[in-house]
Amino acid sequence: MISEKMTAMVKNSSAIRAMFEEGKIMAAKYGAENVYDFSLGNPNVPAPEAVKQAIENILQEEDPLMVHGYMSNSGYEDVRAAIADSLNQRFGTKFHQENILMTVGAAGGLNVVMKTLLNPGEEVLTFAPYFGEYRSYVSNYEGILRAVPANTVDFQPNLEQFEAMICEKTKAVIVNSPNNPTGVVYSEATIRKMAAILEKKEKEYGTSIYLVSDEPYRELAYDGVEVPYLTKYYHNTIVGYSYSKSLSLPGERIGYLVIPDEADDSETIIGAANVANRILGYVNAPSLFQRVIAKCLDAKVDLEYYNRNRKTLYEGLVKAGFSCVKPEGAFYLWMKSPVEDDKAFCEAAKKYHLLIVPGSSFGGSGYVRLAYCVSYETICNALPKFEELAAEYKL
Amino acid sequence: MISEKMTAMVKNSSAIRAMFEEGKIMAAKYGAENVYDFSLGNPNVPAPEAVKQAIENILQEEDPLMVHGYMSNSGYEDVRAAIADSLNQRFGTKFHQENILMTVGAAGGLNVVMKTLLNPGEEVLTFAPYFGEYRSYVSNYEGILRAVPANTVDFQPNLEQFEAMICEKTKAVIVNSPNNPTGVVYSEATIRKMAAILEKKEKEYGTSIYLVSDEPYRELAYDGVEVPYLTKYYHNTIVGYSYSKSLSLPGERIGYLVIPDEADDSETIIGAANVANRILGYVNAPSLFQRVIAKCLDAKVDLEYYNRNRKTLYEGLVKAGFSCVKPEGAFYLWMKSPVEDDKAFCEAAKKYHLLIVPGSSFGGSGYVRLAYCVSYETICNALPKFEELAAEYKL
Repeated sequence: MISEKMTAMVKNSSAIRAMFEEGKIMAAKYGAENVYDFSLGNPNVPAPEAVKQAIENILQEEDPLMVHGYMSNSGYEDVRAAIADSLNQRFGTKFHQENILMTVGAAGGLNVVMKTLLNPGEEVLTFAPYFGEYRSYVSNYEGILRAVPANTVDFQPNLEQFEAMICEKTKAVIVNSPNNPTGVVYSEATIRKMAAILEKKEKEYGTSIYLVSDEPYRELAYDGVEVPYLTKYYHNTIVGYSYSKSLSLPGERIGYLVIPDEADDSETIIGAANVANRILGYVNAPSLFQRVIAKCLDAKVDLEYYNRNRKTLYEGLVKAGFSCVKPEGAFYLWMKSPVEDDKAFCEAAKKYHLLIVPGSSFGGSGYVRLAYCVSYETICNALPKFEELAAEYKL
Repeated sequence: MISEKMTAMVKNSSAIRAMFEEGKIMAAKYGAENVYDFSLGNPNVPAPEAVKQAIENILQEEDPLMVHGYMSNSGYEDVRAAIADSLNQRFGTKFHQENILMTVGAAGGLNVVMKTLLNPGEEVLTFAPYFGEYRSYVSNYEGILRAVPANTVDFQPNLEQFEAMICEKTKAVIVNSPNNPTGVVYSEATIRKMAAILEKKEKEYGTSIYLVSDEPYRELAYDGVEVPYLTKYYHNTIVGYSYSKSLSLPGERIGYLVIPDEADDSETIIGAANVANRILGYVNAPSLFQRVIAKCLDAKVDLEYYNRNRKTLYEGLVKAGFSCVKPEGAFYLWMKSPVEDDKAFCEAAKKYHLLIVPGSSFGGSGYVRLAYCVSYETICNALPKFEELAAEYKL
């Protein structure tokens, strides 16, 4: 009795989420300490103490009717102004509160953008490998997601193919850096070239092509690598941000969109996104956590914990004989499957209680993703298992 | 550059929300105490103290990684089990945790239901006057909302017209009791007749017709009036609940769906709704507030405050010469416009700084809605203004 579209969606439902559920079952069966679950990007570094402090202060000091009440669908004006100021200080931008729309995480924000922009049949490009949910976020609004094939040398975007795939129907491009699933950070050189291609194509077709920057991992970059702020490179950039990873609040569903004045039809888009946020049933981003993040704009999770995991896992896997992309950001490691069939490889890994996600879930078959937002002990205990797995494949 | 569909949506955007924004501007201009804003259903009775206590206890006692982390897309199992138990105790139902899906408020829940059920062109019936957002929630998924004309005698659903409007394409019926905008509670007799009609029509067409009960106002009923629990009367009932009004937490976006085992294809619907919750970008209901409401299942807002408002406003308006439906529930009063053009009447009311919403926003032209979730002082101070307004119309 469910809709035909949902029948297909359920069938293709997230392998990652399915593995998360499977991991819980395995943990119950074998004991949590004997299951090495690298499947889900669920932060294991707790929210900074400042979050707890902010909640307590707000409950003590602010009017509960305001704290838990409705506000403009775009969010509290003071919170949006505080975020704009913070971005301006960090990136030299000139945003004001109207450019900021508070959202139910980045997933909510991306849905708002797609609802706002897409006519049926319009195309959205993204770069393989990519977060599989983009496919749903685009098809929710009858758009068509097309993935630019991966550049398997360094997993920077394949810009030649990208240029060839842009057409009159291209309404938006989704980029995600630091990248899920590869852990790669797109370089400034990449961004400059991408922007030049987009500007050229906009002129060629007389269209607006919006670059949607999905940035839940912005603050998770290692070894001092810079993550360029894209609105500075391309006028039609819309940023989707989330505090899920930067403050370890994924369950709280809090993030924002930046729709800069420089974007074509900026005012219309801002107004429509506000309506989309309402009619899609979000209504507004959760109110208490809007107020919390305004007090935690300079708070940070313990990045060094992820960094130690990153190094230990990367070095351990390479030593075991696996071929890996060295992660520069996020908390994902992208590893080549020793056999072409990455799903079969992930199934084989389960024998050692290793839960890893097939790259084909991200449009990157032949690879697998490991989410290393787990305890350091899990990494240490998993490495001998990975060595056994490598031995099975004669690496 | 925005989508054509959104262009239309922005044009028809919520008059209520527009008035909320207008009210803020008027308050800044004339002083908040001189503006009588009856436009938005934003509770003015604070959340019960138990909410604050629950937040503080959770922050002290529970693991922050769990409290703020991802969980199953349907919500925490222990929270869902606690809600199922509470419903079973109150209503003699037999729900278990799988029947409960935590949602981003009732608006998120209704979007999940529509996404799950609707194929393009399928019809959803509702009863005029109705909450205008239903139109968007249905059209988001290419469904068609058809409103059964109002029974203007007592604003119970017009069941004769209802029966005549059900056809092969009818996939769902949305009911809302206590009702926004009329304040009417659907009687048990009404529900029994409605269920009988639905069962008959299901047989006649060989289809499943889902009764979607939108229940944000369930706990707001006065004078001991009973609000029937609909799953007990009709097998294909899906309940959408929200804590926005019952705990005065509208900004927090917390609610749930009940999908009972008795519903046709129950298991498939439960699975699909879980996926819909994820791909629509909600991902999960806000995590801290899931845990909060599990600790506040017996907490209540101060209903007597609304009740005093209700009586004072109703009696005052009747005394001033207006013709009103006596509200039995929610915090809305439904008043006949003294002239056919309810929009013109609401414009006239603005001269007295009275903000009220035209009934035509709810498919109920010729009437207006007053949200009396305001301070008692606002009601007392507004009544002389309503008397002036009545005098203008020679009532």
